Amino acid sequence: MGSDNTGEFDLIARFFAPLAAPDAYSLTDDAALLPAIPADHRWVVTKDAMVAGVHFLPDDPADLVARKLLRVNLSDLAGMGARPVGYALATAWPKGIDIAYIDAFSEGLKHDQHHYDVTLVGGDTVSTDGPLTLSLTAFGTVGPSGPLRRNAARPGDDIFVTGTIGDGMLGLRAAQGLLAHMKDADVAYLADRYRLPQPRCDLGAALAGLAHGGMDVSDGLLADLGHMATASGVGMEISSQDVPVSATAIRVLNDLDLDLKALFTGGDDYEIVFTAGGEHLDAIVEIAQRTNVPVTRIGSVVAGGGVRLDGAEIDLAAGGWRHF
Amino acid sequence: MGSDNTGEFDLIARFFAPLAAPDAYSLTDDAALLPAIPADHRWVVTKDAMVAGVHFLPDDPADLVARKLLRVNLSDLAGMGARPVGYALATAWPKGIDIAYIDAFSEGLKHDQHHYDVTLVGGDTVSTDGPLTLSLTAFGTVGPSGPLRRNAARPGDDIFVTGTIGDGMLGLRAAQGLLAHMKDADVAYLADRYRLPQPRCDLGAALAGLAHGGMDVSDGLLADLGHMATASGVGMEISSQDVPVSATAIRVLNDLDLDLKALFTGGDDYEIVFTAGGEHLDAIVEIAQRTNVPVTRIGSVVAGGGVRLDGAEIDLAAGGWRHF
Repeated sequence: MGSDNTGEFDLIARFFAPLAAPDAYSLTDDAALLPAIPADHRWVVTKDAMVAGVHFLPDDPADLVARKLLRVNLSDLAGMGARPVGYALATAWPKGIDIAYIDAFSEGLKHDQHHYDVTLVGGDTVSTDGPLTLSLTAFGTVGPSGPLRRNAARPGDDIFVTGTIGDGMLGLRAAQGLLAHMKDADVAYLADRYRLPQPRCDLGAALAGLAHGGMDVSDGLLADLGHMATASGVGMEISSQDVPVSATAIRVLNDLDLDLKALFTGGDDYEIVFTAGGEHLDAIVEIAQRTNVPVTRIGSVVAGGGVRLDGAEIDLAAGGWRHF
Repeated sequence: MGSDNTGEFDLIARFFAPLAAPDAYSLTDDAALLPAIPADHRWVVTKDAMVAGVHFLPDDPADLVARKLLRVNLSDLAGMGARPVGYALATAWPKGIDIAYIDAFSEGLKHDQHHYDVTLVGGDTVSTDGPLTLSLTAFGTVGPSGPLRRNAARPGDDIFVTGTIGDGMLGLRAAQGLLAHMKDADVAYLADRYRLPQPRCDLGAALAGLAHGGMDVSDGLLADLGHMATASGVGMEISSQDVPVSATAIRVLNDLDLDLKALFTGGDDYEIVFTAGGEHLDAIVEIAQRTNVPVTRIGSVVAGGGVRLDGAEIDLAAGGWRHF
């Protein structure tokens, strides 16, 4: 691209080098060196891609796109009970993209790096004739109690979920301008929930060694319960009245004449669903208070298979398995 | 995308799950668990992106695109002296892409996984309205002697390079059909060198603790020597007659009426350039023989700065710094 200011080296030096951990090497070497960790710890790695027009809206603010990209990966780490440490970033910028967009994007990353105490370790910056395409690889660590797994739910466990379910699914509609007739404050609340997930990092890490099954909720609550039921070889029974939903979601749901179940089949929640034996209830309450994350019991793990909502078997093939 | 056979879960189950390390978890969990390594080892991570039409040709065979994607990342690890272990993969497939392309792509990965003894640990599969966009994050380990660094070349060192330089740059022209008037065997040799780099993994790992400066040659030999000179605060003096070039490259160069220097400013070599004290010459010869990789001394590290070719200072800003 010659000497214009979107050349790879200029972009890296101007916007991404300031975000990098100086001892990670990657911005001056071929690859990054991850920090040393205790001998009884292990690295956990996740990688999510986002494409403009598919995973975010072309007019979403650049800083929020960057923060969502980082946060959906941190949510995966939280779902594994891993404590986040750093990330690598690959960006394919459309030719001719406004430098102000890249500037705002890097500012968003900077903000969330501080918030979650993670650093950029390296990556790649290329150009594309297509839409903005982003890929982020996040690195975290788990201690001797090991990662949370989807395959570890046991019959008799209680099922818990963090935060509220369904705001992300309604938030997409809000961000798309489809709720323009609703109250401004409701639209803003939901759009923010869609654009800026709240990964439950501290809570996820605290659950390691205590919870049995665990994962993040990103494909829709019922679909993700189905994933865990299948991986664990168990059944999941939940009650719709127990699933935490926001007052805003209820208002909007009524206005749209949608059933409560719609909230449980949308995606973009980025909460944690986990199971634990009843003897851990006090410890879970303590963790919820300490990490300032609401945790709600929504049902029970049973022998068998499948997911039942209010006693009715859910057809998982129809309910949110696919998210593109 | 409904229930057609390019749904994310179908693609993963059919083409990518068979490539995954069963104990890495990621294909059934939110994130992958990297294997335990000795306490005195460290993880090295690199991430490269490739876009159709920018980094590979839209009609390049899918299996070779996949293998190049993996190999350019392994070359980065080799440039750090790291031994490859695994990789995560993010793919953004154009809507409506032929399943046969994805099948061939996964077959290419399978082939090279065996060859380099690495496994898929996880990743993401999404769709795009734009060109095929790929991002791969490769993981390797270094032992107590630590990684090769760009900043460690010392005045008095000899400079070495592996393989031959410039075939990749001519190979791009061959793959583009611009050398159709040349001998078929020459065109095929060069196109293969462009499409299928030979990362010097074993040699790179063997150099750790022996070489001073080290990196992979991917932006062009002179540009990469410039990177190392700057990072190390030294000068680099090489002689064009000492730089190893293939007989094919010489023939094509003459036919195109290009100067030898053109070979040193193109990219896509994926060789290793490194520096070492003269006392290590015997050890380097032994490593070259053991790993079956040609190694050639091309010059000397001197005090000062910059890169000199046959005594003439190279203007690095003009010579291959940017590769998109």
